[in-house]
Amino acid sequence: MPDRRTERPRAGIAADLSDFCDQAMPAPGTMIGPDAALALVLRKAQTLPARRIPLAEACGLQLAEPVVADRDYPPFSRSMMDGYAVPMADAGRTLKVAGEIAAGEAIAASPLPGECYEIMTGAPCPPGTEAVVPKEEAVRERDCVAIPLVIEPGQHIAPQGSECRRGAIVIERGAAITPLMVAVMASFGRSTISAVPRPSLGAITTGGELAAAGEDPAAAQIRDSNGPMLSAMAVAIGLAPPRTLHADDRLAAIRAALDCVADRDLVVLTGGVSVGAYDLVPEALRQYGAEVVFHKVTQKPGKPLLFARRGPQLVFGLPGNPLACHLCFHRYVAAAARQLAGQPARPPSLPGRLTAAVKAHRLRTFFATARAEPDRAAGGGWLVHPLPGVSSADIFSTCGANCYLEVPPGNEEVPAGSSLPFTWVVDPP
Amino acid sequence: MPDRRTERPRAGIAADLSDFCDQAMPAPGTMIGPDAALALVLRKAQTLPARRIPLAEACGLQLAEPVVADRDYPPFSRSMMDGYAVPMADAGRTLKVAGEIAAGEAIAASPLPGECYEIMTGAPCPPGTEAVVPKEEAVRERDCVAIPLVIEPGQHIAPQGSECRRGAIVIERGAAITPLMVAVMASFGRSTISAVPRPSLGAITTGGELAAAGEDPAAAQIRDSNGPMLSAMAVAIGLAPPRTLHADDRLAAIRAALDCVADRDLVVLTGGVSVGAYDLVPEALRQYGAEVVFHKVTQKPGKPLLFARRGPQLVFGLPGNPLACHLCFHRYVAAAARQLAGQPARPPSLPGRLTAAVKAHRLRTFFATARAEPDRAAGGGWLVHPLPGVSSADIFSTCGANCYLEVPPGNEEVPAGSSLPFTWVVDPP
Repeated sequence: MPDRRTERPRAGIAADLSDFCDQAMPAPGTMIGPDAALALVLRKAQTLPARRIPLAEACGLQLAEPVVADRDYPPFSRSMMDGYAVPMADAGRTLKVAGEIAAGEAIAASPLPGECYEIMTGAPCPPGTEAVVPKEEAVRERDCVAIPLVIEPGQHIAPQGSECRRGAIVIERGAAITPLMVAVMASFGRSTISAVPRPSLGAITTGGELAAAGEDPAAAQIRDSNGPMLSAMAVAIGLAPPRTLHADDRLAAIRAALDCVADRDLVVLTGGVSVGAYDLVPEALRQYGAEVVFHKVTQKPGKPLLFARRGPQLVFGLPGNPLACHLCFHRYVAAAARQLAGQPARPPSLPGRLTAAVKAHRLRTFFATARAEPDRAAGGGWLVHPLPGVSSADIFSTCGANCYLEVPPGNEEVPAGSSLPFTWVVDPP
Repeated sequence: MPDRRTERPRAGIAADLSDFCDQAMPAPGTMIGPDAALALVLRKAQTLPARRIPLAEACGLQLAEPVVADRDYPPFSRSMMDGYAVPMADAGRTLKVAGEIAAGEAIAASPLPGECYEIMTGAPCPPGTEAVVPKEEAVRERDCVAIPLVIEPGQHIAPQGSECRRGAIVIERGAAITPLMVAVMASFGRSTISAVPRPSLGAITTGGELAAAGEDPAAAQIRDSNGPMLSAMAVAIGLAPPRTLHADDRLAAIRAALDCVADRDLVVLTGGVSVGAYDLVPEALRQYGAEVVFHKVTQKPGKPLLFARRGPQLVFGLPGNPLACHLCFHRYVAAAARQLAGQPARPPSLPGRLTAAVKAHRLRTFFATARAEPDRAAGGGWLVHPLPGVSSADIFSTCGANCYLEVPPGNEEVPAGSSLPFTWVVDPP
């Protein structure tokens, strides 16, 4: 789609991923690049069917039906001020105040000649009203009021239907629902709405080295960090906290855990995805009936990434290395989740100017944790400080990262001052 | 603070709001400008006291204690590959495989001379290990394995403590908690953390014209749209859904509703905040014991805005007009909520190029709903399409807005092509 590329050039995660979409699946055992991998994920991520969603949960979702006005708005000619409702002919006259119309009250009949009603903001004007005279512009004495000589026709009245006509489509199908749209839907009596739901997520952590939750780890064990991290990442992109299970390193345990999350739109597993004797995830997925779309991506971290599907369910085998797990969720799982929810899958990548050199990987794209901040000196743009960590699993010196730099493969170091694309992992400062 | 101004110039919601902070409170009845109003709100919004928060709810909060490593990381010398754990002296030799060390298993003793252990990724290296030889680089035959002649000291081993030392501060107090930080905290056994909580919110809708929730409105009634909208806005900025009550236009009802939300950090009321006979909110607040900080702001919409506090509780009287309610929540309540949570109160405003003229208000700052999109032609920046609506209460033709334009007071129209500051009300496209 070269037109789209011209229209909206993007660095980094290229706009031309759709080029990959017509490719055949990679041959078994073939390692693919990170752009091709993302394109394959998005090719399989079909927008979920719309459901009825309570209005209170609709904000941010994609609307799947048009919203139609069930009444005019305002539903009656509405006073915009506290004052007196009069016909134009009463300009300059002194009238008897026949009564008061509070908001929520209706007066069916016009006042008698020589009389008028006091009216409150939000109240319906009585028949025959042509202007509302604000209290402070009228001179009241007991039950009489002097109306100014000069009044404008229609002043301080919102005529019935002036904002919206009954039967009109006020919000088109496909809109991303905002709080103002929630107000519109509430105005028209909607308590539920047809919308594309956010996908449900199941998470399975694997690995014999993980201590049970809440227990002190033995000397050779570590605590699970991927489960809590994935849950936080899911919530951060608007999903409900995932159902999270742990499976030990037995095929039957992983299979059983998969059955427990068979109803989820998305499943992530962590660990067990390489090719060792205990890397049982690929075989467990085969037995579960999932078709592997790709396994292994030329990226660092996260080379062992596996992507499979069973029917509409998308399954990601993420590496156990927590930094790799983080990158793969950020780059692939979150993109799939957004697309399932009918939203643009990929947040744009931005160009950032490096404040320090980064070492590229010879053969793989290196997604380096980094911290971006506004480039004040250059009058715009972003400065990016790489936080590469002491190893590709180091979450301690990298946990302050707010973005990932995308470093293309190469033998050379990318020097300070160079521009590289980055994507936000948390909200920009 | 002129230095900060020089450092980070911002259009619109000015960086020099702190100038207002040393001003006295406005004299009763004085209308103040929107910048002074925001500064007064922020002056009263003290960061909430830290609380113990479950790790699962900590992401996005401000950390109120340093996170200290309770063990080295890795906690043991950890194999990074499936392979064989050997001393350097065994390079080039053929060894007997004495057994296998799976992840999570510890071997206390070194192998006998002439023997080695097969080791899995994530498992602790046995004493005396100086390198791990990947499976694919060793030649195995039954229970013997030939080790290559050339191996590097330390290869494929993450030494104990190489990423982090026990006792080290890994995350400083004050950090905004990211998912990677959640992983770090989980690694060190934290299931709760001291953090600044998000403020709790109570909402009270007032107005006799509102039909009861779920009931069909009578001819002179409208449905409440502010309650659902405020709830959506609260959730969109990360707060829990507010407790929402309705009070009819009686002083006692509003007073009783205020007592029901007395435990909330923030309270918003909608409607009843002008100066008419039924505008009972100011008097109800006085009886409730709240001190009014300001009432009325030279802005459109939202002129009647009232801000009060009772002890640390901040109370906002928002206009009943849904668009005014929306603007006031966006500009004042959300800023207070962020500051209570220890976060930067004001998202930066950006300059946007108008695609159509906007009419300024003669005396008040006009916050116009608008839709911003990337300016592709100009190679950067934002194009902003004003969506002014047919009235200042019109939520129907404005509900697709993604930002507010800030139009300074003036007699002139601001022509298309001009630059005006805007702030996002939903995530940027």
